[in-house]
Amino acid sequence: MRKLWGGAFGRLPSERAAAFGQSIESDLTFWEQDVRGSIAHARMLGSTGIISAEESANLVKGLEQILSEGPDMLPRDVEDIHAAVELRLGEIVGDVAGKLHTARSRNDQVATDARLWLRDQIELLESEIKQWQAAILKQANAHQATILPGTTHQQHAQPISLSYHLMAYFWAFQRHGMRLAHLKQMTNASPLGSAALAGTPFPIDREQTSQDLGFDGPMPSALDATSDRSYVMDALHLCSLIMLDLSRFANEVVLWTTPEFGFLKLPDHLTTGSSIMPQKRNPDMAELIRGRTGIVVGNWVSLATTMKGLVMGYNRDTQDDKPPLFASVELTLDSLAIASEMMADADFQADRMKVSLHADFSTATDLADYLATNGMPFRQAHEIVGQVVRGCIERNIGLEDLTEQTLSEINPDIPVEALGVLSPEGSVARKESYGGTGPKAVEKQIALATELWNLDGFPRPYPF
Amino acid sequence: MRKLWGGAFGRLPSERAAAFGQSIESDLTFWEQDVRGSIAHARMLGSTGIISAEESANLVKGLEQILSEGPDMLPRDVEDIHAAVELRLGEIVGDVAGKLHTARSRNDQVATDARLWLRDQIELLESEIKQWQAAILKQANAHQATILPGTTHQQHAQPISLSYHLMAYFWAFQRHGMRLAHLKQMTNASPLGSAALAGTPFPIDREQTSQDLGFDGPMPSALDATSDRSYVMDALHLCSLIMLDLSRFANEVVLWTTPEFGFLKLPDHLTTGSSIMPQKRNPDMAELIRGRTGIVVGNWVSLATTMKGLVMGYNRDTQDDKPPLFASVELTLDSLAIASEMMADADFQADRMKVSLHADFSTATDLADYLATNGMPFRQAHEIVGQVVRGCIERNIGLEDLTEQTLSEINPDIPVEALGVLSPEGSVARKESYGGTGPKAVEKQIALATELWNLDGFPRPYPF
Amino acid sequence: MRKLWGGAFGRLPSERAAAFGQSIESDLTFWEQDVRGSIAHARMLGSTGIISAEESANLVKGLEQILSEGPDMLPRDVEDIHAAVELRLGEIVGDVAGKLHTARSRNDQVATDARLWLRDQIELLESEIKQWQAAILKQANAHQATILPGTTHQQHAQPISLSYHLMAYFWAFQRHGMRLAHLKQMTNASPLGSAALAGTPFPIDREQTSQDLGFDGPMPSALDATSDRSYVMDALHLCSLIMLDLSRFANEVVLWTTPEFGFLKLPDHLTTGSSIMPQKRNPDMAELIRGRTGIVVGNWVSLATTMKGLVMGYNRDTQDDKPPLFASVELTLDSLAIASEMMADADFQADRMKVSLHADFSTATDLADYLATNGMPFRQAHEIVGQVVRGCIERNIGLEDLTEQTLSEINPDIPVEALGVLSPEGSVARKESYGGTGPKAVEKQIALATELWNLDGFPRPYPF
Amino acid sequence: MRKLWGGAFGRLPSERAAAFGQSIESDLTFWEQDVRGSIAHARMLGSTGIISAEESANLVKGLEQILSEGPDMLPRDVEDIHAAVELRLGEIVGDVAGKLHTARSRNDQVATDARLWLRDQIELLESEIKQWQAAILKQANAHQATILPGTTHQQHAQPISLSYHLMAYFWAFQRHGMRLAHLKQMTNASPLGSAALAGTPFPIDREQTSQDLGFDGPMPSALDATSDRSYVMDALHLCSLIMLDLSRFANEVVLWTTPEFGFLKLPDHLTTGSSIMPQKRNPDMAELIRGRTGIVVGNWVSLATTMKGLVMGYNRDTQDDKPPLFASVELTLDSLAIASEMMADADFQADRMKVSLHADFSTATDLADYLATNGMPFRQAHEIVGQVVRGCIERNIGLEDLTEQTLSEINPDIPVEALGVLSPEGSVARKESYGGTGPKAVEKQIALATELWNLDGFPRPYPF
Repeated sequence: MRKLWGGAFGRLPSERAAAFGQSIESDLTFWEQDVRGSIAHARMLGSTGIISAEESANLVKGLEQILSEGPDMLPRDVEDIHAAVELRLGEIVGDVAGKLHTARSRNDQVATDARLWLRDQIELLESEIKQWQAAILKQANAHQATILPGTTHQQHAQPISLSYHLMAYFWAFQRHGMRLAHLKQMTNASPLGSAALAGTPFPIDREQTSQDLGFDGPMPSALDATSDRSYVMDALHLCSLIMLDLSRFANEVVLWTTPEFGFLKLPDHLTTGSSIMPQKRNPDMAELIRGRTGIVVGNWVSLATTMKGLVMGYNRDTQDDKPPLFASVELTLDSLAIASEMMADADFQADRMKVSLHADFSTATDLADYLATNGMPFRQAHEIVGQVVRGCIERNIGLEDLTEQTLSEINPDIPVEALGVLSPEGSVARKESYGGTGPKAVEKQIALATELWNLDGFPRPYPF
Repeated sequence: MRKLWGGAFGRLPSERAAAFGQSIESDLTFWEQDVRGSIAHARMLGSTGIISAEESANLVKGLEQILSEGPDMLPRDVEDIHAAVELRLGEIVGDVAGKLHTARSRNDQVATDARLWLRDQIELLESEIKQWQAAILKQANAHQATILPGTTHQQHAQPISLSYHLMAYFWAFQRHGMRLAHLKQMTNASPLGSAALAGTPFPIDREQTSQDLGFDGPMPSALDATSDRSYVMDALHLCSLIMLDLSRFANEVVLWTTPEFGFLKLPDHLTTGSSIMPQKRNPDMAELIRGRTGIVVGNWVSLATTMKGLVMGYNRDTQDDKPPLFASVELTLDSLAIASEMMADADFQADRMKVSLHADFSTATDLADYLATNGMPFRQAHEIVGQVVRGCIERNIGLEDLTEQTLSEINPDIPVEALGVLSPEGSVARKESYGGTGPKAVEKQIALATELWNLDGFPRPYPF
Repeated sequence: MRKLWGGAFGRLPSERAAAFGQSIESDLTFWEQDVRGSIAHARMLGSTGIISAEESANLVKGLEQILSEGPDMLPRDVEDIHAAVELRLGEIVGDVAGKLHTARSRNDQVATDARLWLRDQIELLESEIKQWQAAILKQANAHQATILPGTTHQQHAQPISLSYHLMAYFWAFQRHGMRLAHLKQMTNASPLGSAALAGTPFPIDREQTSQDLGFDGPMPSALDATSDRSYVMDALHLCSLIMLDLSRFANEVVLWTTPEFGFLKLPDHLTTGSSIMPQKRNPDMAELIRGRTGIVVGNWVSLATTMKGLVMGYNRDTQDDKPPLFASVELTLDSLAIASEMMADADFQADRMKVSLHADFSTATDLADYLATNGMPFRQAHEIVGQVVRGCIERNIGLEDLTEQTLSEINPDIPVEALGVLSPEGSVARKESYGGTGPKAVEKQIALATELWNLDGFPRPYPF
Repeated sequence: MRKLWGGAFGRLPSERAAAFGQSIESDLTFWEQDVRGSIAHARMLGSTGIISAEESANLVKGLEQILSEGPDMLPRDVEDIHAAVELRLGEIVGDVAGKLHTARSRNDQVATDARLWLRDQIELLESEIKQWQAAILKQANAHQATILPGTTHQQHAQPISLSYHLMAYFWAFQRHGMRLAHLKQMTNASPLGSAALAGTPFPIDREQTSQDLGFDGPMPSALDATSDRSYVMDALHLCSLIMLDLSRFANEVVLWTTPEFGFLKLPDHLTTGSSIMPQKRNPDMAELIRGRTGIVVGNWVSLATTMKGLVMGYNRDTQDDKPPLFASVELTLDSLAIASEMMADADFQADRMKVSLHADFSTATDLADYLATNGMPFRQAHEIVGQVVRGCIERNIGLEDLTEQTLSEINPDIPVEALGVLSPEGSVARKESYGGTGPKAVEKQIALATELWNLDGFPRPYPF
């Protein structure tokens, strides 16, 4: 294995130790960012006169060749990507390659690479969130009149529209979009030029490399810049939040595709079969998203545990911030894409939802609200409705089956007009408070969401 | 145990089940926020005519009495804080208390309470971070000329100033301050008026209650508003990040107070003794901060695991978002306060740091930089300096002990002027790149930090 | 606050620092174990002649008085339980109390207390597991003829008996019982007499105290004995495994009590109501168990993070092993007790299960198996059955609705005898392989389980 | 992508969905175990007459060819390893390959593969633990006379021998060895023949396949057998415990190789250099072990989160139990091997340890013990020694520098004989209690450890 150091060493690392420390395979994920960072550095070395203009031009030209020939030309028998690039550069431009590492260290270099890489992924995540929201909006627009039992404690609580139900996910991801913008800010600061930990005596221009690479500015402490992994923790946290919300959706997909619910049919191309039970239509994609949430949660823990108690300054422990970061981001991107496909292609079964609402007492609150509107303290109304529900259960009927006579048998004091508020459709129609499931309220919700969706990114302050 | 429901129930919960579900002890943490939320709700019920102005006034007056008499008057034989307040209100204002719960549910009520509570804590956290930063600035100002070995891999790397070292913590917490501002935005949105999950048919005014309680606005979906716990996850994440950085500082305190390092003495009032070893000065506060980082990390995991796969709508599982939130915030506040005390009262031992720098080869990079400045490719300079280091070790001397003759014995090609760059003070003095440890660079750093510290909160975009 | 040290201190801890370090409230959990440990130590000091027989007798008498008067007499303005007991002892027996701490340290004392406490809890856990298994056996015996759709991917796969379904939980907890026995072994070793970290020059008899306290023997290294927290990690792991399995059961309860499933009715005393929706029967106990699994998982993480990188020897960080341990064990005990109540009182709805089986194609594998038995390669049989299923779906019928004619329309090569294997009851009846859902196989399962249950503890080697 | 199902499907999975579900790359880790499981199954199908003897022989012969030709001949454009093997088998033996899947399912097959794989790894882990213990014993034997400051709170507490210090790790890993034996028992039970979830109507012989594969017996419930992942959790837990203890050792290596401590020199082949600082000898291997502990801890969390709330029966979520298992086991094996190398080749610096003991007051307890031995209550002795320590500090001397006169100035009541107990060597020599650091006690410890080490495996009950 070829390394960038060794002059003072009598004996080289044992093979096992070398393999344990090697990061080249994982590093290849950001090979391109590593080269882009080196180009900016080489340009700056030239423009500040630290190396000659010609040397600088040669380095840049060689690095651009590496960019265009791609990672397959990079050697693999090396410790890390920095060694790989520098060795390849030496093959292209000769001895001047040895000047590239002037006034920098692998510590600031790897920090730069990781930030550039994450910044690129943030663009992708933003785009996937927008696609997922588009799928929600599509279905929400289509299902404003579809009514299903809204639940609390997974028990029927009150009828709601499907549109209303799905839109709840829109807002969760609007927040994730805002978090993404925050993450970008935390990520997009330049550590380049920090060198190992203390800065450098060379007259470097960190402002120039920062601008060249599109960073918002150089980080004000070189020691902090090479030690900080908090933006990686932020990224792992955000991936976890996104996956947790997708796990909620995925679990609903699994639930709704059971024969007992039957609220949802997935298209064939998003289900899988059984090697032994030919009738199966398994919601595997939903299960995998739900299950892999664990991986992303575990990755946050992994880095948190690693960071605990590390003293200031670069420690090798932090090499392992990258595999969990790469894995979590990739998994989140894939999961968003597949969830979008599921959402967009979901075939919701309005008839099964309607059946499910029958005799489920989910309009009981409407009765209580009716009594309260007519002056009865809500607590008393609540108790009276409880008696009505029990009366119905004893008679084996639903609230919508109540006649004037049965009602008066149960409780003669309830005005018969109350019978008018017991249909699911009516229940939904009356909930027009801001953010409620009433059709006008939902229309407003969708309109606001559509307006936000059409903005570039997620710039509007919460709660929008 | 007294409850707010039960009309339709034949038999009440078993004692064990009731105790398992009871949250009153934990709820008392935000009793005040619960009452403040109810006052806003009661006012709104009056101003919208849902209840009469007189009823509204009575409710508000009763609730204000509860505020002023404090939590000791609240009953404890109840399920939760909402029951406690409503029962006490009934004792004060009579039957009209039963009207308070019109057009709301415990689901939006508890969400409101938790957000109000967290918003209050965010103020406290902001203030503790500022105090911690003040302690850093105090020491950084005092120790600009104190030099110690800066480390990577916990091995001496390059000499740095203590001021420079400590300032790295400043920036880490400046970012945490920004995260706090972001958290506030995620927290400060009003769920009040969402009712159970679907809104309400009453003509409530959510804008009014939102303004009354100082929220930035009502959340646009009642279902989302009662389901969302992502802001709690954000809070648990931020507490974890803060504790992780404090654990790094704490570990340095433990390390530096060992007799072998001796870089730091803690005052008596921040150490503890041994029941068996009377000479001990244990850095217990640092150990406890370092150790309790685990609790805060575990709390993030706790809620993440709880949230996995929960279907949309309130689920009782989320009751347990509060104990970890309360614990993490309290622990973070305490740890910040104690760390600030340790930082402010730390007695750094400049002489021990100086001793530690002797013959540690931490100016080897300076030699390499010197050679590179004179035109040698850095890689080659690196190798030559390696030989010099080996030569010194063989002769049992440090770099600063090199004479012209010894240097030429080791490598005759190195110009003797190189000997001039090998003192720790000189090494520090030359690192004047932006963010470096050079005295002017550090002065700039401190100036920028002081400017930021004097701002109200953490408003400046990163990297400042 | 009163402490057991301070002689060499100029100034005592600040109030905040003292409160941060105080553990008395949490320590009270094992006050009794602390006293029992001290009694054994005091006896040994006497029998080895380290103190006089009279002194020893006085100490023991005083400690026994503390045991009988209970924790309310212990002072609370102290650092920890050790101080509390020693101060109280001084009030009772006078100056001789100061001899109790001879030849020990708080480091070995607290390790002893925690192990004694956990050993007591292991008894309780064992008993709760047995009760939970008894509830399973009761229902399994009652429901051997109740048939429901067994699922994979939460999709109907094959019909199984309810007895068979529930018994799966029995075995999961039989393993947990074995893990408990393993945990007991890891816990029941004596650290007493290790002193601070190095043993003691006093001629103590660790074998005696170990026997006196019912330990299996003294731990062979005093340094290891005061550093080891791996048995606590084992306990936190086992609590997590138990809660994870209870979360699976709890989630099934939530699922099965939905109106769509309706497989299960919980009795009133194990459900709760809504403050706004009087018809609700919420499975809160199941939700709380499911949700609190997160707390127990988080506690494992908490201690793991705390332990990372701690150097050998007592570190104050490990003080915080106890709160998560206490919390996890208590929660696990409560959850087991409540789950047992739910299992024992569950009212399973055989008719709803039967309805759910209709036209669900869950006997398709039976058809494939039939074809394979008659010589067709299973892969081919699998494909043919797939065609039959599609044929039925096109005709909107279930497999059990197939007539000879329809079958031959779909595929004329399938022998009509195949129609005989398509009923759910028959499907269950034929699966008599060891561990299968066939009635005889289940009877065997129950018999083996009953035999194991009747044993004292969980002594039989896996897989039994 | 080729699959083992699809007959009833109108349209195949989308490419992205297929890739998301594909596990072939990860599955290759246990390709060999998959084939071995199939051989046992094929033999049993023949011996029970479910297929003909000739068919069985052909299947076995084909599978043995796959074993010998290795995984490179397996197709990769498949969903999983089961498909790969069956397709390759078809190429070798023709249509009869389709009979292999009779009376089994991928659900029991993958459970079998994973258990066989883990059982093999347990052997490797056992061997690595023995090697690590051998390295400890080697150094412990060599360093019985080397004395260093034993610490609590990382502060000097009492002098101990290096031998004694290192042996503490021996016992921690002796326990891990016992845990490994327990894990083996949890792992080594046969799920084969459970089929999808309910058993099978074929007259299979699970006892035969169990014996053939070296399992301890068939699991008594097919539903449990296909759902259980608790043994994987056990494995992830044990890997975490091992890594946590290695992280403690690794952190000590990092600490002891700092110039300030200098207790330890690592050989060149176990350190790495810097690309910018040629003098560096970085303990990278120790840092990587310490850091990667996070990965293993995170993997436990990952699966715990995944398992939360999964209903009984196979769920696709559990596919993701394998990548964390593979990663944790591999990392633990590597870390053990590298830690063994570090331990065996560590060059401990006895002279630096001796220097560190000077004037560190670590024999203060000896003075207290001396006073207590002479009848003074320990608490009083503790306070007096505190005064002596303060007296020395004021005079800027160590305890070993005390003269009769200085002692009497500080406290005239202390007998001058006390001066005899203040040397580190004497302190160590007197701590001969069982498990103490005294030379005879350590000799006994090493003798017991050596005896245990020579046993096959870890059979002796704790605490040995």
